[in-house]
Amino acid sequence: MRYKIYKQLKLNNSMKTNDLDLVLGFDIGGTTIAWGAVSKDGSTILRSYALTKEEKPLFEKYEIKTQAYETFDDFFKALVKKVDQFIEDNNLKGRIRGIGAGCPNGKHGDNTMEYAPNIRWAREYVIHLGDAFEQYYSLPVSVTNDADAAGMGEKIYGAAKNVRDFLLLTLGTGLGSVLFVNNDLVYGHDSFAGEIGHVRAEGNDRLGSRLCGCGRWNCTETFVSATGIKRTAFELMAKYNGEFNGKKSELSQYSFDRLDSEKIYQAAVRGDEIALECFRITGEILGIKLADSVAYTSPEKIYLFGGLTKAGDYILKPTREYFEKNLLKIWQGKGISIELSQLPDADAAVLGAGALIWNELDK
Amino acid sequence: MRYKIYKQLKLNNSMKTNDLDLVLGFDIGGTTIAWGAVSKDGSTILRSYALTKEEKPLFEKYEIKTQAYETFDDFFKALVKKVDQFIEDNNLKGRIRGIGAGCPNGKHGDNTMEYAPNIRWAREYVIHLGDAFEQYYSLPVSVTNDADAAGMGEKIYGAAKNVRDFLLLTLGTGLGSVLFVNNDLVYGHDSFAGEIGHVRAEGNDRLGSRLCGCGRWNCTETFVSATGIKRTAFELMAKYNGEFNGKKSELSQYSFDRLDSEKIYQAAVRGDEIALECFRITGEILGIKLADSVAYTSPEKIYLFGGLTKAGDYILKPTREYFEKNLLKIWQGKGISIELSQLPDADAAVLGAGALIWNELDK
Repeated sequence: MRYKIYKQLKLNNSMKTNDLDLVLGFDIGGTTIAWGAVSKDGSTILRSYALTKEEKPLFEKYEIKTQAYETFDDFFKALVKKVDQFIEDNNLKGRIRGIGAGCPNGKHGDNTMEYAPNIRWAREYVIHLGDAFEQYYSLPVSVTNDADAAGMGEKIYGAAKNVRDFLLLTLGTGLGSVLFVNNDLVYGHDSFAGEIGHVRAEGNDRLGSRLCGCGRWNCTETFVSATGIKRTAFELMAKYNGEFNGKKSELSQYSFDRLDSEKIYQAAVRGDEIALECFRITGEILGIKLADSVAYTSPEKIYLFGGLTKAGDYILKPTREYFEKNLLKIWQGKGISIELSQLPDADAAVLGAGALIWNELDK
Repeated sequence: MRYKIYKQLKLNNSMKTNDLDLVLGFDIGGTTIAWGAVSKDGSTILRSYALTKEEKPLFEKYEIKTQAYETFDDFFKALVKKVDQFIEDNNLKGRIRGIGAGCPNGKHGDNTMEYAPNIRWAREYVIHLGDAFEQYYSLPVSVTNDADAAGMGEKIYGAAKNVRDFLLLTLGTGLGSVLFVNNDLVYGHDSFAGEIGHVRAEGNDRLGSRLCGCGRWNCTETFVSATGIKRTAFELMAKYNGEFNGKKSELSQYSFDRLDSEKIYQAAVRGDEIALECFRITGEILGIKLADSVAYTSPEKIYLFGGLTKAGDYILKPTREYFEKNLLKIWQGKGISIELSQLPDADAAVLGAGALIWNELDK
């Protein structure tokens, strides 16, 4: 289904950009939608969402629950109503030059969301999100998936600003990835490039095999993700009967539904041996996979982004160790480094979506 | 060591190109050197090497043994003497616009050969091959590795002419690879991108582990290459005591030194069960690795090139079968195809080297 026009709210038709110009960046998540107006240099962000607890009221005013709608039509009507309010509140009419959006299963070029499994109105459809925005606001629109948006944010506003060839992995519920080659994001022939999360893991011999959401076995994301580390915790408790190195694990009190990567991190901080081993194994599998990944596009830097990276050295240290150890000799000791994303966590997705459209407006 | 100037043989200083213009393409091999003068459209190739048996005398006249020299200095002096003769014989003075060279461990950008292990005068040195050519002939030069040259040949003159995103693997003594993204060859931050041969194999559970020339274990090239299939033949003979499916293998008569992939192919044609199983396993491991490789850059096509591909369906059929079976669902049945290179075997390396420099002259 092609998306039908609602109304034509002309925001800006001039072709020249100036310092006051902004783009809207959308982060379409499974729970809620965050957006912001982003200046070209990323220094200005007007947010629809809370950056800190103090800004919470701002968030509530524009809050929109992704799953509260049966159809995309209903969802989109509700969304633009909030966005129009945001534009009015911030006096943005005439200053918005384009719209970028990162979303699950976003397809660059077509500007669609294709069969996003975790969103009820998108699950069985190709959603023409880009057309909808374009026809409503008469602005250029660029849509892509979450990992691509994060990579674009890192490239335009973050640590990768001056890095031509890099790899970025998003360690969230799943394991997303994006490759940059020669300063350009690699979309591949069908916009689906960068699925390293679904390359089979190695170095996982100490663990059993795992079914992936994609229907195959042992994809790297079944081990390296917030969900993956929880599965590892459960497997280690089964394997060692709830204790490790002679110490009972505090993780044994949680059900599968209640345990999450944050709790495993907190337990690791308190010295819980199973939790510590979870991070060691996760880093080991990630490090080995990254070493093999270098062999494809030879990136100069690898960035890690997302919830699981908050564990810092717990995951970084083993990742770096096994990465260096498993690199092909031509790359050992050559300084290909694994670093954390430098985008502020709360703004990253919106900055990325903004970067996506700024990058295309500039071409 | 920077390379010293010998003499300045001015061949062509004008900046305009015309239909009579040619470039020299060099294929620097471990045994011998082949070169040719290649027109922009690839339709004209004046060869220093034999294309068919009938042309053998032409080859002998310009023959030069790579390993007959102690130093690069001596080698290069001997080489340009032959090349000068070739230029004179073919009346090419004033028509040559540039030089391309594919060589082991060739590094694009620096135009060097770095520690090529199989060439005595290159083993311990960074050889400034590009500088040497440039200073001798006063022409633009581009050097890269063999696999990159093969990929460039496929892109400019072969099956990949209109394909933006593809992967090419060279199945020779080792397993080389090259990636194209968005019509450009992926060099990576250090020109060493495309080492899929050194990504660890999977699906090789029926075989033991294998030491790779790179010092690591189970790199894909230890299974998928002319050398790899010989190792597989020896392993299967050890495993099944020289027979398979109740039939004694003719391969049992060969020493490790004498067996090669051509003999395994000939045996397979005659229905030898061990030989057939060798190709099945090789194709299986290759197919699984290619399925995972798609997850990086999402190529539209995958091309196979080199000696082992002469076995045709013996290797292609299992490769395609295990490729399709192991693809992530988003790519299954979408027509990402595995095909054989369409460059004429004898000319491929020289055409590739020619394409390399034409591609840069055109920029």
